[in-house]
Amino acid sequence: MDVFMQAAIDEAKKGLAEGGIPIGSVMVINRRIVGSGHNKRVQDGDPVMHAEIDCLRSAGRVGRYKDAVLYSTLMPCYLCAGAVVQFGIKKVIVGESKNFEGARAFMEAHGVEVVDLDLPECKDMMAEFIQKNPALWFEDIGKL
Amino acid sequence: MDVFMQAAIDEAKKGLAEGGIPIGSVMVINRRIVGSGHNKRVQDGDPVMHAEIDCLRSAGRVGRYKDAVLYSTLMPCYLCAGAVVQFGIKKVIVGESKNFEGARAFMEAHGVEVVDLDLPECKDMMAEFIQKNPALWFEDIGKL
Repeated sequence: MDVFMQAAIDEAKKGLAEGGIPIGSVMVINRRIVGSGHNKRVQDGDPVMHAEIDCLRSAGRVGRYKDAVLYSTLMPCYLCAGAVVQFGIKKVIVGESKNFEGARAFMEAHGVEVVDLDLPECKDMMAEFIQKNPALWFEDIGKL
Repeated sequence: MDVFMQAAIDEAKKGLAEGGIPIGSVMVINRRIVGSGHNKRVQDGDPVMHAEIDCLRSAGRVGRYKDAVLYSTLMPCYLCAGAVVQFGIKKVIVGESKNFEGARAFMEAHGVEVVDLDLPECKDMMAEFIQKNPALWFEDIGKL
């Protein structure tokens, strides 16, 4: 397992242990983790605190993102993909997109390289969560 | 002046008084303001705290956004437009788009109605800020 994706998975598990939605993210610049986070909709009662947004916040005011690689356990939605495109992040590596198609095409149309690792560990974690918490999941992706 | 756009302008001015970037936003459901916010990049050292994101946070876990109208003093960038599209907000009313083109076409392509009021007050406030603080502005839109 890629050490950075493992860190994103660890974030997702932290969120799950807190009673939250198990999606984790880390941002890497020059092979160093500069930010990490996980979905906190439940924990903070905050609808925008998706894993990637929490991760970008934790990294602070980076300024230039052209060398940044954003890892996420799940394909980013339009909110998080919008941040990627606006901030000029050039590469996104995800654990899976089977449980959520996300905004891959949108990112690619804006020149972002998207790599989908299609990891069983990520797919199983998310599938189990969605099955147990459908309303929470559909709230998170704006499909209530 | 539309009372809701005035509330968004008041938010922008609050941000300016705090030393921040003067962009404000309110969200309205059934003619009632349910959330409000302004850009807090400088104040909170937070790169994702654009006005619309701050506004969505302040509204909390709304769940369904289909009757929500999002007001912003400036055309939303991809980050904020991504939130609009993902959450299913159907209408966005902006003060201006002369200082920043934003992601209007992206929102419209996803079925969002976008109204640009092209208000001199909003254009002047933003133009003056950008002229005085170009580096801060380009940081905020990911163009450093």
